Amino acid sequence: MSQTCIHERTSKEEIEKGLKLQPKFDSNGLIPCITTEVHSNEVIMFAWMNEEALRHTIETGKTTYFSRSRGKLWVKGESSGQIQWVKELRTDCDQDVILVKADIGENGAACHNGYKSCFYRKLEGDALVFDGGEPLFDPEEVYKK
Amino acid sequence: MSQTCIHERTSKEEIEKGLKLQPKFDSNGLIPCITTEVHSNEVIMFAWMNEEALRHTIETGKTTYFSRSRGKLWVKGESSGQIQWVKELRTDCDQDVILVKADIGENGAACHNGYKSCFYRKLEGDALVFDGGEPLFDPEEVYKK
Repeated sequence: MSQTCIHERTSKEEIEKGLKLQPKFDSNGLIPCITTEVHSNEVIMFAWMNEEALRHTIETGKTTYFSRSRGKLWVKGESSGQIQWVKELRTDCDQDVILVKADIGENGAACHNGYKSCFYRKLEGDALVFDGGEPLFDPEEVYKK
Repeated sequence: MSQTCIHERTSKEEIEKGLKLQPKFDSNGLIPCITTEVHSNEVIMFAWMNEEALRHTIETGKTTYFSRSRGKLWVKGESSGQIQWVKELRTDCDQDVILVKADIGENGAACHNGYKSCFYRKLEGDALVFDGGEPLFDPEEVYKK
């Protein structure tokens, strides 16, 4: 995919109704990214991208985020092996959010705690309830140095 | 739902593995919220909540965001009639994102441009392509004063 697919922002009309990718990076140079599992549409994680991460995602087909805690590019799966292959990349009306639909494989897990999705708890009444299945890998095993 | 379901943040262990909702609001007092359509799991919008908006969402069952542009609470559907009924509310591992699965009715549209989803364009090659169907309402008609 061309290096030129990321464009400067222009008018509201062009941003909302146009055919150019004109992402808005915030004052920290970041744009939120929602990642879903392509087959189920399930939201599996949420992270941030800077322009370099977005470009790397588009060019390599592997979701690449910007780790705010580590202050650097983060090719998802580099440590854990849990690569997310981009099947579709979308943006919203005002182009300040990215949505990626990714193939993570049959037993893929997006969460650093080993769960398929980071959203493994739902609110029921006053409390959270776990319903995200069992962890698919052992974080202590996977992230050990 | 009780007013007390939003708790102060404690340890990493409790935040990631515990049963208390302990959301992290950023330095602006906001937490990102991803909203999906409950039947299809489709991501329909992304917005921000402050604590009051999150509390209002939980207590009323209607998604309530904080409008950064208007600087105030925004009960989704107040102007457009496009109310989003909360069917499920989740948080992620480190509790710095909210995920709502909402019922928006058969012909509901989350986007201010009239589309079901704000993510009505996908990247194909170098350009965006519209594939979010036809607008389900006329924004000029709906938002006129």
